[in-house]
Amino acid sequence: MMNFDRTKHSHCRYNPLKDEWVLVSPQRLSRPWQGRVEEDDDGGDTNNNQQSTNPLCPGAIRRETSQPNPFYEHTFVFDNDYPALLSDIAADENEKNKNDDDLFQCHVARGVCKVICFHPNSNLTLPRMTLDDISHVIKTWIDVYQDLASKYQWVQIFENRGDMMGCSNPHPHCQVWATDFLPNEARIKHRTQKDYFTKHNGNVLLLDYIKREFNEFKKERVVIDNEHWLVVVPYWAVWPYETMLLPKRHVLRLSDLTDDEQTGLGQIMKQLLIKYDNLFNTSFPYSMGWHGAPTGDLSNEDCSHWQLHALYYPPLVRSATIKKFMVGYEMLAQAQRDITPEYAAEALRNLSSEIHYKDKKN
Amino acid sequence: MMNFDRTKHSHCRYNPLKDEWVLVSPQRLSRPWQGRVEEDDDGGDTNNNQQSTNPLCPGAIRRETSQPNPFYEHTFVFDNDYPALLSDIAADENEKNKNDDDLFQCHVARGVCKVICFHPNSNLTLPRMTLDDISHVIKTWIDVYQDLASKYQWVQIFENRGDMMGCSNPHPHCQVWATDFLPNEARIKHRTQKDYFTKHNGNVLLLDYIKREFNEFKKERVVIDNEHWLVVVPYWAVWPYETMLLPKRHVLRLSDLTDDEQTGLGQIMKQLLIKYDNLFNTSFPYSMGWHGAPTGDLSNEDCSHWQLHALYYPPLVRSATIKKFMVGYEMLAQAQRDITPEYAAEALRNLSSEIHYKDKKN
Ligand SMILES: O=P(O)(O)O[C@H]1O[C@H](CO)[C@@H](O)[C@H](O)[C@H]1O
Ligand SMILES: O=P(O)(O)O[C@H]1O[C@H](CO)[C@@H](O)[C@H](O)[C@H]1O
Repeated sequence: MMNFDRTKHSHCRYNPLKDEWVLVSPQRLSRPWQGRVEEDDDGGDTNNNQQSTNPLCPGAIRRETSQPNPFYEHTFVFDNDYPALLSDIAADENEKNKNDDDLFQCHVARGVCKVICFHPNSNLTLPRMTLDDISHVIKTWIDVYQDLASKYQWVQIFENRGDMMGCSNPHPHCQVWATDFLPNEARIKHRTQKDYFTKHNGNVLLLDYIKREFNEFKKERVVIDNEHWLVVVPYWAVWPYETMLLPKRHVLRLSDLTDDEQTGLGQIMKQLLIKYDNLFNTSFPYSMGWHGAPTGDLSNEDCSHWQLHALYYPPLVRSATIKKFMVGYEMLAQAQRDITPEYAAEALRNLSSEIHYKDKKN
Repeated sequence: MMNFDRTKHSHCRYNPLKDEWVLVSPQRLSRPWQGRVEEDDDGGDTNNNQQSTNPLCPGAIRRETSQPNPFYEHTFVFDNDYPALLSDIAADENEKNKNDDDLFQCHVARGVCKVICFHPNSNLTLPRMTLDDISHVIKTWIDVYQDLASKYQWVQIFENRGDMMGCSNPHPHCQVWATDFLPNEARIKHRTQKDYFTKHNGNVLLLDYIKREFNEFKKERVVIDNEHWLVVVPYWAVWPYETMLLPKRHVLRLSDLTDDEQTGLGQIMKQLLIKYDNLFNTSFPYSMGWHGAPTGDLSNEDCSHWQLHALYYPPLVRSATIKKFMVGYEMLAQAQRDITPEYAAEALRNLSSEIHYKDKKN
């Protein structure tokens, strides 16, 4: 019998936001990898896309529109040409009646899908943009969010970075899918945060969590922080270098951020993304997105149990070409990770947040 | 305003086993793909692994053991050399006390990880094995299951097929991870099936589901069936060609199958896997696994709300080299699919289940 040691032995950790567990197996760290090795995707540096042939560039003509894109200088927003959601579907009586069917349940999904280009240059990723460039991205997020939030219950801003994450165009961009319903993740977090709030006399789950990370755990899992924001590898992180980015103040939605908070956000995002790229000297792939209080008609409800946060889910685990596969056991039973969140936080903390590996003189 | 049509317009479907929704967007079927294209992995035909250098082969010496593998003729079971679970960890007082902590919750994870080789030949996949070969696999599943079920609450048998699914060795094999706790998926299905059972006076969720698929929906989503088994693309399927394989009789666990049912299982598995390979003329990658009633000390509880079933989660969507990416929106909001389950079922139904594309004379 070995005595349990969190840094050496398998254990499960609970994610109170999602009400689920993750299996942590630090003893597997020494496992050799004989499986698939990915191609190193350097994030556009060798991307010779002619400005005019990439459909996301200023002046380009997209296959589905006859009008050329404007010669935009900062960001550019347009409707996805192949939206996963449609806005103008009439209610279906047949389907509506089915909603008390316990086995075959279905509802119409109404919404819109937008694309936001971050910058005119196809080969410039966020960590290598200026703070001014990034501030335009943040302002555009807020504008698009505010516009859609007036109509839809949930506005999901997300970025798929790198072709390993299914991103089909290297031009820096993100997407926004807004829906007239709460998707699964939103619905669950709405419930878990509300339950915590009720049980703990109006305390906010994520604010209590931050407080304890700072005081009780001495920033063991904190990667970086500034006056208004922090980045933490959550105690329950699933992906090897997963992080959560959140404001220190109680903020419900992206649209509630002050000017100072927006400035601080640009700074900490750039720092985090430089660290990520420096980890394996590659343009670090990830999916990221924002979660905040519901909107549309749901904003009439009390949502003060919510705390705005962004999530970064990067797949790489050992190098620029070896990713973590969430397959078999993960799909059928439970997420599993090898490196501990504490190990990941320390590795990220130790990297430069100022000098991007591509800008290093040597 | 368009009138809602399930074959053309975005909608959400409810998965009563997992208590979550999937977004179906059939209008996206025409979307061109400009993103990552995978390599075609033909499942071992060009796999020139010398029998002696592949560590899963008869007579091979694995890096971590000095003893050579036996010269096995059918299946071969051994303990995973890099297990994600350990069995001999003592209880930790410190962690135990933390279990009433709403934010930092953790428990020791005890268990074992085994590997089952299906066949001595490295380049033979299940669909190309004889029915006799497959019956040895099924018997081994049951033996290993029975052995571990006496001690552990959950015995997860799963197969990762193809390097796209993180499988690091092309030799036909699966894994078994047994744990002293219910992993997330098991815990949720335990609850949902029990709730349904209680609400519907002792009816079993999946048996009611089958009945309605056959009678009310005229096998619209059924791919194949025989006397004892059926394969269906569930109404709520997430992966493009996801299927569920289940017995027609009320069966709680793999170990409850009669001899006839075991024979029927081998037949229908071979047929399904031939269809899968024939879909894109490739050795179809997937993760698959078995779910049945809990075991260990939990088998003392009444588990008659459970129905045994296997799940196949294949990633391919358009061809041998284009897969569905579950990223961005899927990770942050809700699973999304383009082709409808009905479309997938029809495509699979129309393929030969007898002649594998590699065995076709032309
Ligand atoms: O087969 P392996 O090498 O143990 O590992 C594979 O399956 C495991 C269980 O699904 C996953 O945790 C790994 O990420 C995957 O690469
Ligand atoms: O960026 P695209 O081409 O729209 O598509 C990508 O992101 C979507 C949203 O996360 C996913 O549904 C697709 O599978 C992925 O390839």
